[in-house]
Amino acid sequence: MVAQKSVVTPQSEDFPRWYQDVLNKAELAENGPVRGTMVIRPYGYALWERMQAEVDQRIKAAGADNAYFPLFIPESYLHKESDHVEGFSPELAVVTMGGGRELAEPVVVRPTSETIINAYLSKWIQSHRDLPMLINQWANVVRWEMRPRIFLRTTEFLWQEGHTAHASQQSARTYAAKILHEVYRDFMEQVLAIPVLVGYKTAAERFPGAINSMCLEAMMRDTKALQMGTSHELGQSFATMFDITYLDAEGNQEHVWQTSWGVSSRMVGGLIMAHGDDRGMVVPPRLAPTQAVVVAVRSDANVVEACHSLATELHAKGVRVKVDDATDTGFGRRATNWELKGVPMRVEIGPRDLEQQQATVVSRIGTEKQAVGLGDVPAVLVRELDRAQQAILATATAWRDSKIVDVNNLSTAREAAQVGFARIPWQVLGTEGEAALAKDAISVRCLQRADGSLPQAMEEPDLMAICARSY
Amino acid sequence: MVAQKSVVTPQSEDFPRWYQDVLNKAELAENGPVRGTMVIRPYGYALWERMQAEVDQRIKAAGADNAYFPLFIPESYLHKESDHVEGFSPELAVVTMGGGRELAEPVVVRPTSETIINAYLSKWIQSHRDLPMLINQWANVVRWEMRPRIFLRTTEFLWQEGHTAHASQQSARTYAAKILHEVYRDFMEQVLAIPVLVGYKTAAERFPGAINSMCLEAMMRDTKALQMGTSHELGQSFATMFDITYLDAEGNQEHVWQTSWGVSSRMVGGLIMAHGDDRGMVVPPRLAPTQAVVVAVRSDANVVEACHSLATELHAKGVRVKVDDATDTGFGRRATNWELKGVPMRVEIGPRDLEQQQATVVSRIGTEKQAVGLGDVPAVLVRELDRAQQAILATATAWRDSKIVDVNNLSTAREAAQVGFARIPWQVLGTEGEAALAKDAISVRCLQRADGSLPQAMEEPDLMAICARSY
Repeated sequence: MVAQKSVVTPQSEDFPRWYQDVLNKAELAENGPVRGTMVIRPYGYALWERMQAEVDQRIKAAGADNAYFPLFIPESYLHKESDHVEGFSPELAVVTMGGGRELAEPVVVRPTSETIINAYLSKWIQSHRDLPMLINQWANVVRWEMRPRIFLRTTEFLWQEGHTAHASQQSARTYAAKILHEVYRDFMEQVLAIPVLVGYKTAAERFPGAINSMCLEAMMRDTKALQMGTSHELGQSFATMFDITYLDAEGNQEHVWQTSWGVSSRMVGGLIMAHGDDRGMVVPPRLAPTQAVVVAVRSDANVVEACHSLATELHAKGVRVKVDDATDTGFGRRATNWELKGVPMRVEIGPRDLEQQQATVVSRIGTEKQAVGLGDVPAVLVRELDRAQQAILATATAWRDSKIVDVNNLSTAREAAQVGFARIPWQVLGTEGEAALAKDAISVRCLQRADGSLPQAMEEPDLMAICARSY
Repeated sequence: MVAQKSVVTPQSEDFPRWYQDVLNKAELAENGPVRGTMVIRPYGYALWERMQAEVDQRIKAAGADNAYFPLFIPESYLHKESDHVEGFSPELAVVTMGGGRELAEPVVVRPTSETIINAYLSKWIQSHRDLPMLINQWANVVRWEMRPRIFLRTTEFLWQEGHTAHASQQSARTYAAKILHEVYRDFMEQVLAIPVLVGYKTAAERFPGAINSMCLEAMMRDTKALQMGTSHELGQSFATMFDITYLDAEGNQEHVWQTSWGVSSRMVGGLIMAHGDDRGMVVPPRLAPTQAVVVAVRSDANVVEACHSLATELHAKGVRVKVDDATDTGFGRRATNWELKGVPMRVEIGPRDLEQQQATVVSRIGTEKQAVGLGDVPAVLVRELDRAQQAILATATAWRDSKIVDVNNLSTAREAAQVGFARIPWQVLGTEGEAALAKDAISVRCLQRADGSLPQAMEEPDLMAICARSY
């Protein structure tokens, strides 16, 4: 085999440059003109749209309703919760001019919507019959970013944020965990094919204003961690500040217990970095906007016709399919482009294939080409798509598990976290150890039980700390 | 019949108050804390989500791809097109502080995205093979609003904005008209059941920066006009300012021809005001997030069970259905609430219905109650939903047509536009007549051919001007 110059920088050579190359060459996204903002190109946005559809469906199944709250929040709202304002103040974008005049009270562009949503929950919630109140919003938010990186950390990003109010602490905690498991984890593992570790954030890493932050952490191909989503218990602090009370069945006025939870366009970055290889992206079939592309090898009319007719059949079978008959561009270059974009299956039809009434089927994650009779292609493709989905998750899981090392003191933790995740008893590490690791840019990603499950409370004994470098 | 106190102010008594009552009582939306912003509540947002889904599907069928561009635009971008900056400057929200510091260059919150999108089309378009480039974005935009009204005119609103680049003026014009007819008009008439007049805006009413604005205008129940959507030909002005050129097949460098087009959350206001009556909203079945509600008249276990089992059957038939078994609240009040929300069909089941194995079917637009055997409900409902869709459009069309009056001079135009739309030859009215009508808050909503079709060009003779008061 002749060594080919690859179209992207190899991961092993320079991972950040590999990521940047994939963003550019797969036409996913690029920098916006204002520092830290991004332009999401059609293919990148199609990935996000598919994520939205899958997450939205699960959020609705969990009983929450979508709504929409304003982008602009009076500055005074943020000051109502002290941890919250302290956490977000350094990142705010502030509008001081509106309609040609200086504003009497500046407004902030929402960095998150706890304050404005809770101001309304306070009006809408009166009785225990109104609880739980489960609201979700899909929106853009802004956090001024000093070290931006496309999809991973941008001044403006797209997300969903859920905000709920409950009659009891237990109901709030249970719902936050339900979202973590049934919405986020299920989506990430079953659709994105990304295995995630779940757990609690330490006090140092908690969301500003939360009493408890649950999270999902994934390992990228460079062994760094990416926080894929969070689900917070807010306790009663916002309820107290925004006076969100209800009349219980016994006629007492009580404050509600709350949660908030979100996943964002950062998941697109996670998708790229969790599965990508030196040929570009690998997109799992259940997520893929295009699951299969039927490529006309040459421009012969009967070849092009066969491609379209096969695509029609595949579409009827429920496969998200595209035809590539752009034969002005060489076949090799087109094949490389579909690989770059991570399209799961390629079906190639050339004049010789057609003569033999067959097509060549190539999986993005395989190396072999299969010759398949034209009539069998739909069945083969459906089977191969399913197989690819399972294989991508299995590969990512096995690889991640091989990079998690159990350690029992600070120095081995530090070492292990340079090339993977270090797992260490939280009682051994403690907040002092956590602070020590922070000097080497290593953080505790989450606290979880030894069996990997979510604790019932931070105070449980024998919790394990997962330590890693992170995005 | 005993006169009942209606839950909303009658339209004939005070139309703006009727609108406000419907917004509140049907729990659609309310004012945000920053002047001119709005909070869209779950039911209002569900209507918008259905609109998005239907419009998005048509946009994709028209060949455009979704993408996402930043909320923040450098102030200097807006200054590149002189009409554009003049049109939008008075409405801008300006961010002057970011990340705790004063910004070197202030950024504006997008009022529309022509400038930022065209800056990128300029990079992406190289050759005639890249054309047409068809981009759409779903986003929030901000235009500081001095006289806000929920859904109709708000400081922040939700919309889609399409931006396309073409090799020829004819291609751009044809595409702008395609969007007008195949996406917008089809959606408005077939889904919203709102008949629309199409035509060109006069020079006075044109989008800032366009050479030609096509529009869709609907009549509200108070006989005022609402602009439901627009599709603009931008000519080559943005292409020149942002240097968007392509190499044609002969090797010449040419500027592209462009379009932009949008519909917004204002359509929710249009939906309310086009069909609503003194009992609240009327939502056409094809749009309705809930097409039918199965109401348990009493809390008897077998009644509630029968409701759920019927709903399961209806769901299987593709009906978007909800069960109302909130029997804590009186039946009459619940029935009134579903009417307020405009849910097309109500199926009531009480103990006596159940004894006779029947249900009572009530259409939102009818007055009679039908007793229907339980087994026949699904078929009856599917038929009635279809019938209601047609009836709502037919009623709105007949009523609107009865309020369009042909006139032939300024004073009769002024008179007719007080109680409907006045149609007058554009040659008779002219820009002077247009300016005279403006003094009475009457505007030319559009110029169209006598047969109601879209002209090929503004210069066509015998165009008719539709004049009205408007939102």
